Amino acid sequence: MNSQVDIGLAGLGVMGENLALNLQKNGWSIALFNRHEEKVQEFLKQHNDPSFTPCTTPEEFCKKLKTPRKILLTVKSGPAVDEMIHLFIPHLEKGDVIIDGGNSDYRHTTRRCHFLEEHGIHYVGLGISGGMEGAQNGASLMAGCTLESWELVKDILFSIAAKKENGEICCMRAGTDGAGHFLKMVHNGIEYAEMQLIAETYALLKHLLRWTPPQLQALYKKWNQTELNSYLLEITADIFSKTEPDGSFTIDKILDAAKQKGTGQWSVQSALEIGTPVPSLAQAVFARQLSSMKEERQRASEILDEVPVSSGNSYHNSFADSIRMAYHASRISVYAQSFQMLKMGAKFYHWDEMQMEDIASIWQAGCIIRSEMLHDIRTAYKNDPALPNLLLSEHFHHTITEYQRDWRITAATGTLQGIPLPGITAALHYYDMIRSTDLPANLIQAQRDYFGYHGFERNDHPRGELFHLNP
Amino acid sequence: MNSQVDIGLAGLGVMGENLALNLQKNGWSIALFNRHEEKVQEFLKQHNDPSFTPCTTPEEFCKKLKTPRKILLTVKSGPAVDEMIHLFIPHLEKGDVIIDGGNSDYRHTTRRCHFLEEHGIHYVGLGISGGMEGAQNGASLMAGCTLESWELVKDILFSIAAKKENGEICCMRAGTDGAGHFLKMVHNGIEYAEMQLIAETYALLKHLLRWTPPQLQALYKKWNQTELNSYLLEITADIFSKTEPDGSFTIDKILDAAKQKGTGQWSVQSALEIGTPVPSLAQAVFARQLSSMKEERQRASEILDEVPVSSGNSYHNSFADSIRMAYHASRISVYAQSFQMLKMGAKFYHWDEMQMEDIASIWQAGCIIRSEMLHDIRTAYKNDPALPNLLLSEHFHHTITEYQRDWRITAATGTLQGIPLPGITAALHYYDMIRSTDLPANLIQAQRDYFGYHGFERNDHPRGELFHLNP
Repeated sequence: MNSQVDIGLAGLGVMGENLALNLQKNGWSIALFNRHEEKVQEFLKQHNDPSFTPCTTPEEFCKKLKTPRKILLTVKSGPAVDEMIHLFIPHLEKGDVIIDGGNSDYRHTTRRCHFLEEHGIHYVGLGISGGMEGAQNGASLMAGCTLESWELVKDILFSIAAKKENGEICCMRAGTDGAGHFLKMVHNGIEYAEMQLIAETYALLKHLLRWTPPQLQALYKKWNQTELNSYLLEITADIFSKTEPDGSFTIDKILDAAKQKGTGQWSVQSALEIGTPVPSLAQAVFARQLSSMKEERQRASEILDEVPVSSGNSYHNSFADSIRMAYHASRISVYAQSFQMLKMGAKFYHWDEMQMEDIASIWQAGCIIRSEMLHDIRTAYKNDPALPNLLLSEHFHHTITEYQRDWRITAATGTLQGIPLPGITAALHYYDMIRSTDLPANLIQAQRDYFGYHGFERNDHPRGELFHLNP
Repeated sequence: MNSQVDIGLAGLGVMGENLALNLQKNGWSIALFNRHEEKVQEFLKQHNDPSFTPCTTPEEFCKKLKTPRKILLTVKSGPAVDEMIHLFIPHLEKGDVIIDGGNSDYRHTTRRCHFLEEHGIHYVGLGISGGMEGAQNGASLMAGCTLESWELVKDILFSIAAKKENGEICCMRAGTDGAGHFLKMVHNGIEYAEMQLIAETYALLKHLLRWTPPQLQALYKKWNQTELNSYLLEITADIFSKTEPDGSFTIDKILDAAKQKGTGQWSVQSALEIGTPVPSLAQAVFARQLSSMKEERQRASEILDEVPVSSGNSYHNSFADSIRMAYHASRISVYAQSFQMLKMGAKFYHWDEMQMEDIASIWQAGCIIRSEMLHDIRTAYKNDPALPNLLLSEHFHHTITEYQRDWRITAATGTLQGIPLPGITAALHYYDMIRSTDLPANLIQAQRDYFGYHGFERNDHPRGELFHLNP
């Protein structure tokens, strides 16, 4: 048997298939393995090319690969990853590399990394963003591994990563072990928050201005030609153009019950673990959960009356511009929260390689959250790598100052009119907390001391000294 | 050596000392053990009573106890609990009971329960609420254990639990293994949310109405004589009366940087795990985190300008009444979220004993969150144990309908004036989401299908059937 194949790909789901095509297009030869063999045959029927070598057993699969072997796993995150690893271990040698390209929990990636280290096998936790399209034509790649492992895989990863117009490659090593999957997890948390914000602008435009899908399409398209430019806004505009055979709009036929996989939830759980506030991400996750409680909502709507505060209000089309500014300012707050989480995570887990400027850079193309704003974020961190918070960068600070009034009015309007804006308001209140020197947390400290004798610090004494209330 | 002592108490921290005094007062004899022996001597110097038997070794401690032995651990949650368990195991027999009275993570309690089961030893995870005062004079007790274990400890637990005026005892078995600590965790999550809401009313009254501590004291005292009556409100009023030697108010000297232990954070992480939305609890945890970032806030406040939307506004004292209604309505939303979490948790972990009515009952006295509202919650679940959501009960529904207008105006006012109200707004937007039949989640589903081919359900087809966007 010849051992001449460049890389093995295990798991022919949607992502696996598209990554296989991406690898092939870039000149690599690929061994294919899937637990259900038929999948490989089906794939080859559609994509018959000598670059692909079908394999039916783990042994055959591993034997076909050049050493040091490189295996890219594209299986469902969770136990399936461990199962695959254990299938391959008996057929691997020291120095071989396994790359987990799934959406794995970064803590599991760290565990697997250390486990395989004991077998002398390299392990790379690889976050891949870009959906099917990115997988096939260039994705944003976030790797966690040792420098030694990185040297073995980077050529392959660079080849299948997204490239920007200026030639920059959207691929980085974010740190050791779980760093890549951590980064991907935060990316997905941002994706949740971004989608929630767009959904809230849609709710406002639909309920207050009574705009129709064609009007919405035109608006989002227009917004997308401004500083708001993003992939998510682009597809949103397109979505509002989709029609049914009878001419009605598809968006109106879609059930308002959002699903989720694990990463949004994980990112909030992880933020709580690290101790970094991400209210907008949390609200986006909760909003999806609430939307999925469709029957409960139906029942509640029949009982709970609407009490509009100013039912006579009519909103002018010009209000759409306030919504635009609220959306933009909220996005800044989302990124401020998320980049704080990245900085705190890098510190917490000792991933010194995780530079904010680089992250903003590799998210500029290929991935779902690519947008114009990432360019400004990158610039902000380039100008000041130690920036304490994105909100303090000159560019974003000026934008928020300019948009703040409309941000507040938009948030207040939804609040008064009963249109839930958990994402926009959480983003605004985060901003208001960050800029406040006088929060009511002194009362919370007094209460904690009152019932639990926890002690409090005083503003006329050095930090760290604890005092108690007089009895 | 006589084996005549009723119960052993290990760990003489603040909670341990007060629980020892409570047990003694109720006629039990108590063996005392502490890793640092001096603590036991110190305690006995202050509380010299024949009920207390000091012990210096785990062996002596266990030998002194009547069989089946009952040991109450009151040590710091975490590794210290496991260490104590391992100290005692060699000196215990089948049928003995260990009770963990600390704030342990309920998942660890479940693990320990199963571990000790293998040794034939009963394990009771006991949530205790009430602070020092409750520990000494009657706390709210939430146990997780088998029915067999329960029979062995319930007399002791009933004796030290809080009693209501009508003689009801604030003590329940919430289910097996981790159920008691789960319940205590949610209790603490509610405590965080309750404290955050009070803090927000304080911020509004201070910044908008410029009220002084004596005015605030009078207001909270007045509120406390209404349906808003609660222990936390009572101590809040008292806190505003505390003065310094120079006559200034202590509240103004306390640093606005709130601390937290683990349980608030855990309750949000757990809710995410179970998939039940608790936005108000999450916002309360994040608000504490943000408050503790004091230096960052100081710096941000120097850069980020305030842009009041209507700087000319002056608020009348009558606005305090809108704040009161917003506070009350927000509390209803907090309890609606939290009792949904309890119901979901009971289902998720198969704790069938966890009845909502009982929980409301045992929280009515002894514990930190005791309040008038728990009476109404209890009644609501008594009238309809299958109530889908507290917001739908007649009583709360009517209250919210009546208060809704002021709730919205208060939330909008903070939003417009730059006073962060993450708790109040999250509570309101939860309500608005629950009662909405038309959330913008259809757009989120369309986006997910667009970039990830995840599929969506349609409102003109049965649930479960998946569709895709036309290309």
